[in-house]
This record gives sequence, C-alpha cells and structure tokens, in this order.
Amino acid sequence: MINVLFAAPAHQWDAYHAPLSRAFASVGIGVNLSRSHAAAAVDYLIYAPGGPVTDFTPFTRARAVLSLWAGVEKIVTNPSLHLPLARMVDPGLAQGMVEYVTGHVLRHHLGMDADIIGHSSGNWVQRRVPLAAERPVTVLGLGELGRACARMLAQIGFPVTGWSQSAKTIPGLHCLSGPVGLISALRGAQIIVSLLPLTPDTTDILNAETLALPARGAAIINPGRGALIDDAALLAALDSGQIGHATLDVFRTEPLPRDDPFWAHPRITVTPHIAAETRPDTASQVIADNIRRAEAGEPMLYLVDRSKGY
Amino acid sequence: MINVLFAAPAHQWDAYHAPLSRAFASVGIGVNLSRSHAAAAVDYLIYAPGGPVTDFTPFTRARAVLSLWAGVEKIVTNPSLHLPLARMVDPGLAQGMVEYVTGHVLRHHLGMDADIIGHSSGNWVQRRVPLAAERPVTVLGLGELGRACARMLAQIGFPVTGWSQSAKTIPGLHCLSGPVGLISALRGAQIIVSLLPLTPDTTDILNAETLALPARGAAIINPGRGALIDDAALLAALDSGQIGHATLDVFRTEPLPRDDPFWAHPRITVTPHIAAETRPDTASQVIADNIRRAEAGEPMLYLVDRSKGY
Repeated sequence: MINVLFAAPAHQWDAYHAPLSRAFASVGIGVNLSRSHAAAAVDYLIYAPGGPVTDFTPFTRARAVLSLWAGVEKIVTNPSLHLPLARMVDPGLAQGMVEYVTGHVLRHHLGMDADIIGHSSGNWVQRRVPLAAERPVTVLGLGELGRACARMLAQIGFPVTGWSQSAKTIPGLHCLSGPVGLISALRGAQIIVSLLPLTPDTTDILNAETLALPARGAAIINPGRGALIDDAALLAALDSGQIGHATLDVFRTEPLPRDDPFWAHPRITVTPHIAAETRPDTASQVIADNIRRAEAGEPMLYLVDRSKGY
Repeated sequence: MINVLFAAPAHQWDAYHAPLSRAFASVGIGVNLSRSHAAAAVDYLIYAPGGPVTDFTPFTRARAVLSLWAGVEKIVTNPSLHLPLARMVDPGLAQGMVEYVTGHVLRHHLGMDADIIGHSSGNWVQRRVPLAAERPVTVLGLGELGRACARMLAQIGFPVTGWSQSAKTIPGLHCLSGPVGLISALRGAQIIVSLLPLTPDTTDILNAETLALPARGAAIINPGRGALIDDAALLAALDSGQIGHATLDVFRTEPLPRDDPFWAHPRITVTPHIAAETRPDTASQVIADNIRRAEAGEPMLYLVDRSKGY
C-alpha cells in the first residue's frame, strides 16, 4: 500500500475523499489515503495552501508533493521543500477558464453591459458592433490555460497575440516573448487577458508604463493572479479613461475586503475567484495518474521548475 | 451595361453605393447602378423593406430581386412579385450572429449579470459554475445562421440540440425536426436560441405550451424574429419563474415602443436589433457574385422557395 497524506485545508477532504479513492482504484494502485499518516511513513503528499503542512523536513521517505492548485507561488518558495513538486493541470479547470475568458471577452467585445445595466431605459439606440476580426486581443501567459483560451478566441475570429516570458511557438497564434515582445503585444490591444504565473518577474507586470500601451479604452480581464497588476496604476488608468474596464477575478487579498475601492468602481467588475476551479473528479484523476507514473518509474507530469517558479 | 435598381430605403444608398460599385468591378461585370432607372429598363433590383418599390408589376424585363435582408417575410408575400427572389446570406452577418449568440449564451451560462449589476455589493459570494458540458443548449433553426451558431457552441463544449422544421443532418450535432422533435428539443433545455425563419408555421412557436418544456429557469435568446414568441406567454413564463431570463433582439414592432413592458421587465434584456447586421462590404460581394452568376447562365444562390416562405 502507498501512503498518501491529504495535506489540504480540512473542508477540501469532503470534496476530494471519494473522487480520489475512485481515481486510485481506476488506475489500479493500492493507496492508503489519510489526513493523519505519521510524517516518516508518507509516500506522497497532496497539498493545497492553508492546510496542515508548512514544514516538509519530517517527510523523509516522501517521493513527491502533488499540488491541488495550478498556481504554486505559495509553496515553491518554501525553503523546507526539496521534493519534486507537481502542479495541478486539470482539464476541468482549463475548460472552465476557457468558458470564463471567452464569455468576458465577448461581453466586452459586444458592449453587453450597456444592454444589461440600461435595460429599462426605453431608448432604442442601435450601435455598430465591429466583427471580432476587427478587435485585437492579447493573451499574457501561454501555459495550459493561456494557450487554451487563446486558441478558442482565435477560433471565434479574434486576431490573437500571445505573450510569454520565454519564446514559444504555437500553431495559428502570433506569439511574442520577452520585454521587447511585451511592448508589441500590448500596443494597440483592445482586450487583454492576463493568465501569467506569478513570479518576481511578473509581479506588477501591468503597471503605469505597460497600461499606457493598449488602445485607449481597452478592457483588462485578469483571472490569473491579483499581483500581476499594480492596483494603484490600474485605478489611475481607469480614471483617465486609458483603460475602459477591468474585470478582475483575483486579488492581492482574498476575499477582497469590503472597503476595497475595486468593489464600487464603475469601471471594475469583481468576480469572486470563480473563473476556474479545480474540479475534484478531473483533478483526482490527474493526481492518481501521476502517482501511478511515479510508482511505475515513468517521469511525473507537470513538475515545477524551481528556477522559473512555475 | 446591366441596369441595377437600388430599391432600398434612401439612407442605405450612402452605405452601399461604393461597396457595390467595387464588388461589381471585382467580379468583372459592367453595371449601371442607380436609384432612378425607368422600371421597364431594370435588369435586377436590390431590395430592402421600406424602400420605394411596393409593386413589382412594372419591372417587365427584370430577371431577379436580390434582398439585402436575410429574413424575407415582408416581401415573399407580395402578390405582385413573380420574379426569382434571392435572400441575403452574408458571411459577415453570420459571423456577427455567432459572436452575439455565443456571447449571450456564455453570459447566461456564467451567470454574469450578478457580477455586472451587483458589482458594488462588497459581497464575496463564490458560486459554483458548472462546465458547459453540463448545460444543454437548444438552437431552433438550422439555416446558415442557426447552423453556424450551433457549431460554435458545440466547439466550446455545450451539448447542443438543433431543431428545424424539415429533417436535417449536420455532422457533430444532435438534430431533431417536426412537431414531435420540437418537444424533445425543448424538454430540459437550459438555454434556447431562436433563429427560425418567420413563416405561418413558426409564428408564436414559443408559446405557453412550448415554454413549459425547458428546464425551470431556462434562458431564451431570440435574435431571429420577434413574432416567433408569443409575447404574453413569455411574460407569464418569466413571472412564474419557469423561464429565468429572456434576451431579445427582435420584436413585433421595431423600434420597440417606449411603453412596452419588455423594457422595464427585470428578467428581460432588450438589445436594439444589433445581433447581426448585413455588412455592406461582404453583402455587396454576395450580390455582385449572384448577378454575375445569373448573367453567366449559372443558377443563382440563396433563391427563396415561395412554398416554404424562406
């Protein structure tokens, strides 16, 4: 039997216990899943921030840590962690992100808010909506999530530019990289989707300087990480009209405090970190398959590169 | 020279004059385009409702009428019209419709209105958004527009059922037809998109009986024709909660009168017939190519079947 420690916050146990058990059975490995194994007896840890484990030193026999979260910035910097760390790449999460991003890009593209908020006006004012082909969209971040969103937006007809820190080639997508590429990627964009991993290099990547590059009145959609945006610079760009709207799903502090100016700002839409959630059924399958791989001597999937931080 | 009469409302002349001239030149036909040809000298009419022509009898030499509109219910019943009639099938219009329908389906799927209208609440309430795969969508009408929308929704991940009056087979789409098929198509649907042509058979097709079939709280999106819906039955279904929301782009009377109850209804979104517009550049190309075909003795495209009415 393989001893797997469930080291996520207690409320996740109810959601994950049964799906994980089913997933382990489905890949044919015998697992003793528990929240209370002795540290020295643990073979694998399933981890999420806010759970019981902060010091990985006592897990002397463990072979890997499997994160329930796609973003690993809260664990990758833990100095006691020397074990291999696998990120969550959940097909359900990527699909949810594609739906959120596509929906909000189309919302801004179609100017839907005017119809939704002004629905009782009685004013029949026809506006010309350009085709998607006339609306340049830039996706920052070309990992699993950014790539899936960029592909769907291109399928709908938007001219999509993708940007990542290191150069990538993705068929059918105009890809740029590095600091100079970032300037080209943002310049003239009308909708910007931010799906970068959070690292020291990407913190505040949307700041006073870079927010001046998009077309005047551009929309920002941030379902990535709150700290990708310099909050004060965003508020200033919204107030000046340089940025027309921001739809934010992630924040430096979550839940977003009740007195945060983002809530009341007429040009900000707050969604409460619902863009994409890890789904227990699909995520459990990913974890079970990765443990099976490790046990069979195959390379694990989605291992984090500590030097990059993701 | 071919004499083409521009018989659409006067304000359209500014939008169409240059694109039509370019399009005729691009297909290599010599056209004398005018708003004032003598009726007996006209070879082809470009027609839209509200223009100068109501009696087609004097056009003794004309070979065909080319509609600028996709919907032809206002001309097909004209007793003086015996000429071949071609509908507009504009690739720009289909693309605009796909963008509108996909955007509003995702808006209802994601429950966006709560975030857009309640943005200043300060309440961090996470809700579970199901994946598109768990949200059955039904598209009524499988002409050019319905088919294009159904395909895109299926690509995003929605389980899509398509319904048309006569049986159709479309790869990758669950297709139903006829009165019995309509019941199956609507039963349990969570989002319904109505893109049928307006005929005596489809008038009021969404009525008290059929609106009772979808899942409770389903959303209706109607960018087709206003008279496809029995207005009083829709209001009753919204008030009872059987239908959760209606997004309407078309109405029995347009512009929608200021005192119409649709404007103020909290569960109705009115968009002012902007879902899809015929775009002069692409539409002019379609018309020029169809006249070129007729002149070359090739069959014209998009000819209306008077017995069906579309």
